[in-house]
Amino acid sequence: MKHVTIRALAQALNLSVSTISKALRDSYEISEETKQRVLELAARLNYMPNPYASSLRGKQSRNIGVVIPEVADSFFSLAINGIESVVKEKGYHVLIYLTHEQFANEQSILREFQGGRVDGVLLSVSRETVSGQHILDLMARDIPVVFFDRTLADVEADKIVTDDFDSGYTATQHLLDKGCRQIAYLTISENLSISAQRMEGYLKALSGHGLRPSRNDIVQCSADSTFNYNQVKKMLQRKKRPDGILASVEKLANPVYQACRELSLAIPEHVKVICFSNLEIATILHPPLTTITQPAFEIGKTAASVLLKALDKKRARPSVQEVIIPSSLIIRESSGR
Amino acid sequence: MKHVTIRALAQALNLSVSTISKALRDSYEISEETKQRVLELAARLNYMPNPYASSLRGKQSRNIGVVIPEVADSFFSLAINGIESVVKEKGYHVLIYLTHEQFANEQSILREFQGGRVDGVLLSVSRETVSGQHILDLMARDIPVVFFDRTLADVEADKIVTDDFDSGYTATQHLLDKGCRQIAYLTISENLSISAQRMEGYLKALSGHGLRPSRNDIVQCSADSTFNYNQVKKMLQRKKRPDGILASVEKLANPVYQACRELSLAIPEHVKVICFSNLEIATILHPPLTTITQPAFEIGKTAASVLLKALDKKRARPSVQEVIIPSSLIIRESSGR
Repeated sequence: MKHVTIRALAQALNLSVSTISKALRDSYEISEETKQRVLELAARLNYMPNPYASSLRGKQSRNIGVVIPEVADSFFSLAINGIESVVKEKGYHVLIYLTHEQFANEQSILREFQGGRVDGVLLSVSRETVSGQHILDLMARDIPVVFFDRTLADVEADKIVTDDFDSGYTATQHLLDKGCRQIAYLTISENLSISAQRMEGYLKALSGHGLRPSRNDIVQCSADSTFNYNQVKKMLQRKKRPDGILASVEKLANPVYQACRELSLAIPEHVKVICFSNLEIATILHPPLTTITQPAFEIGKTAASVLLKALDKKRARPSVQEVIIPSSLIIRESSGR
Repeated sequence: MKHVTIRALAQALNLSVSTISKALRDSYEISEETKQRVLELAARLNYMPNPYASSLRGKQSRNIGVVIPEVADSFFSLAINGIESVVKEKGYHVLIYLTHEQFANEQSILREFQGGRVDGVLLSVSRETVSGQHILDLMARDIPVVFFDRTLADVEADKIVTDDFDSGYTATQHLLDKGCRQIAYLTISENLSISAQRMEGYLKALSGHGLRPSRNDIVQCSADSTFNYNQVKKMLQRKKRPDGILASVEKLANPVYQACRELSLAIPEHVKVICFSNLEIATILHPPLTTITQPAFEIGKTAASVLLKALDKKRARPSVQEVIIPSSLIIRESSGR
């Protein structure tokens, strides 16, 4: 089946292309009778407007780009649900783009957006991202960007985040209360806003007890699970090994549990563990995992609402805002009862 | 910063719009010197071609649509990685669309695609999808569709799947070997190709032992985790409760473990459990979960390769093919040692 064009409709009805176009847009210039004829034929031939042509005319793609590092993390899958819950009813499409934690990918995706592929962007930066020129370039073209979860301090834009500093503090304080005195911190990037703030909270709680972590107790993990497993194992094999672990990213729970099992270290007896995670199955791990659980759905939903307001040019825009939605410490067996 | 148009470049250089356009496309009609001037100014003003305008001219969007029910399932997140591993190096963009398991969403996404938003589609149907007219309509417009994982029997298109019947058979046979005689099957849709085939394998293995499941042992779950929990709990509270459970979808592991814990049923002593799942943390559940693990990355990669061949019009297309990549039974403690 050939794609039915406006031109084909015009020929079939012996009308001009412009008349057909106006009839399809329900213009007052066209009689009701003609509109009826055009719409009937369009329906019969299954005419579909070309979205790119519509975009050229209307200067709007009706797409919202969601740029995230990955989908294999329950935070992002829940956040996407939150985003879609508000965006779809406004007639926008959600296009999901993955950077796979690489700055170069993030740059090329945002550069591509400059051409008008999306009307606005919801962005959670990659762990490699330390500068924001690619974001500023996009915003300079009147394409609004709203950060969610992972932000860049030096880009002035709306930011919807959770209380990462407080969460890091609360988690560490909980481990201290449970008797830990040497608490390790696992991070996937010290550059990343969320990791850095969680770590600041961790350091603050330690210093409240007159403690300072040794260099060896702050472990830099990566995207590679075998590498992470080896890093954690090495840390736990040291003579002076930690009695508590705060893992700043969901995927770090697995290497910690695996390494403890391999080394016959019991959780929580030998090592107490807390992980930032939204996984439902945290409760059925062995032992059930104490988590900092983030308001992922709410963060996505709020970020999308803020972006939609920015796109709605008829409304006066408030100045740039940062919204903080708090996370919760959910205590389970891995941190001791 | 205003979006820089071809018209602006033309005015600045005192050339016609058509000359600028040809120069940007490296046309032989334009002198090298003029091309140089145009490219220099375009670079200086950060000129970006409008992708929709390019699409209108070139009839190609360079987008591949990936339509899946959800991302909160490790199968799909791994499959997306497989898809991206081959698609990106060919200069295509991957756009991810979620149906949230709803047929109406799937229809509207595919209908939208008819306008040329994507060049080709990788599709895993929703659990509500039983007819394929919306897919046929899209293919009739010369937009190739490749199914992966979840397919529709009555649509003739390339299909990349795993051996669902064999996997269902192998898993059930394993439970029978471990002494189970009343094995329940948990499904989220009997319509869905994968669920139906896994169930056929299950029934075949049972009948090999002269067994037939009671109606109560085939449980229809949903997208709602509380509902699923209640369904499973009800099943396990029956006087004649199952001694084995085969869960056909990853997210069903959690309600099974939760319900067993609530009812003080030990896994595997009272109930042996196998789940179709690609979760890495299956190994650290309590007890570690026996899984049918699917070749998710490979399925995504193969589906994308087949689609790219279909898009490469220069190559002769083989007839429609079905590729079957086998899954593996990974035995852990939940099914008994």
